[in-house]
Amino acid sequence: MIIEGKNAVKEALTNNITINKMMVQNNLTDNASNQIIKLAKDKGIRIDFVNKDVLDKKTRNRHQGFICDITDFNYGEVEDILNKASTLNQDPFIVILDGIEDPHNFGAIIRTCECAGVHGIIIPEHRACAVNDTVVKTSAGATANMIIARVNNLNNCIEVLKKEGIWIYCLETDGKEMTETNLKGAIALVVGSEGKGVSKLTRQLCDETISIKLNGKINSLNASVATAVVVYEVVRQRG
Amino acid sequence: MIIEGKNAVKEALTNNITINKMMVQNNLTDNASNQIIKLAKDKGIRIDFVNKDVLDKKTRNRHQGFICDITDFNYGEVEDILNKASTLNQDPFIVILDGIEDPHNFGAIIRTCECAGVHGIIIPEHRACAVNDTVVKTSAGATANMIIARVNNLNNCIEVLKKEGIWIYCLETDGKEMTETNLKGAIALVVGSEGKGVSKLTRQLCDETISIKLNGKINSLNASVATAVVVYEVVRQRG
Repeated sequence: MIIEGKNAVKEALTNNITINKMMVQNNLTDNASNQIIKLAKDKGIRIDFVNKDVLDKKTRNRHQGFICDITDFNYGEVEDILNKASTLNQDPFIVILDGIEDPHNFGAIIRTCECAGVHGIIIPEHRACAVNDTVVKTSAGATANMIIARVNNLNNCIEVLKKEGIWIYCLETDGKEMTETNLKGAIALVVGSEGKGVSKLTRQLCDETISIKLNGKINSLNASVATAVVVYEVVRQRG
Repeated sequence: MIIEGKNAVKEALTNNITINKMMVQNNLTDNASNQIIKLAKDKGIRIDFVNKDVLDKKTRNRHQGFICDITDFNYGEVEDILNKASTLNQDPFIVILDGIEDPHNFGAIIRTCECAGVHGIIIPEHRACAVNDTVVKTSAGATANMIIARVNNLNNCIEVLKKEGIWIYCLETDGKEMTETNLKGAIALVVGSEGKGVSKLTRQLCDETISIKLNGKINSLNASVATAVVVYEVVRQRG
């Protein structure tokens, strides 16, 4: 797997991601670039200095002079998420993504969850975006600090979480206003896909539906924005 | 919309038409060309220097080495924003974007602001993303329902808002926790650019700095996510 761009590469270097090798554009002299190159050298990572066109060929996105080759993403287990919360002596706070397909949305959600202190993210194995290069880049490297569990059957997984005493909230447009809902305690937040929302069966399994107040004419928020707004309402209520 | 040719481009530059960016043919050395390039640079307009064939592909007419992309979005005035709040009998709630450059972020912010009931958005004329096709698309059409004022000088504009009794909050990482700050009343929220944050001078003009709690290792949220989280905290506090 490849990650690119100054921020993403720097995050990878500082977050114990295993980097196989790096390709760096020749003759970069700015401070940020020098700092990244020094970090990589200090870690003994192999650096190939190449011309810009070599990097351009390798990726169509904005590499900003830096590409690195990392080992494939290491998914965790639902149990790891529960253990993490337990180790921190906190009530579990989990985000379940029911079919997010856009890697930019997925990456943005991972970044937000990491910043907010969510213990882990659960995604389905099929019909959803996996952790790929774009996701890692959009997450600003947050994938390195987030347990992401990929499960075969989201509904079975929700049943297991309920047995663990976790209250399952579904985020949809016709629920109870989130700020009027008690979001403390052990919770999981289910967020639906960009176009279709939370699937019917999954929704039936949830304990409660919550919504974000919409005051305008547009009838929905972007999936990653909506997730962020609720996640931070949880952070506020937990204090 | 595109305009082309030395005369037309020069007219645009001297007549306060909002120019998003210019494409100029490489290696032009005549006086008239130099004069136009200087005018554009003085106005802080982004200039892409390209080979003649790039310009030829863009237009079938006589570009004479100059093409510029002018806006056809109908920007509003700061006064329109204040009038909107007054008509709704609400305290003004304004978002000021200090140099957002990514059209996806800008579009996402417009969508969120529309959903939340923000009365208007203020952006600077230069060094910031204008309302273009990508912005309109990413906003899910929210641009049609949002007053966006584009001002020549953001700092002067903030001074005017302060005289109108509007309290100016700056969103940065080292301020007071937003949930512990009173965000009711007439307010404007200043959000900085993706890489650089709020510029120093602008920040000094703000009445107060607020922050979003970061519990993880990543030291910042995406600009559109951060804006959404604060905007919805304002919505919550306003009730």
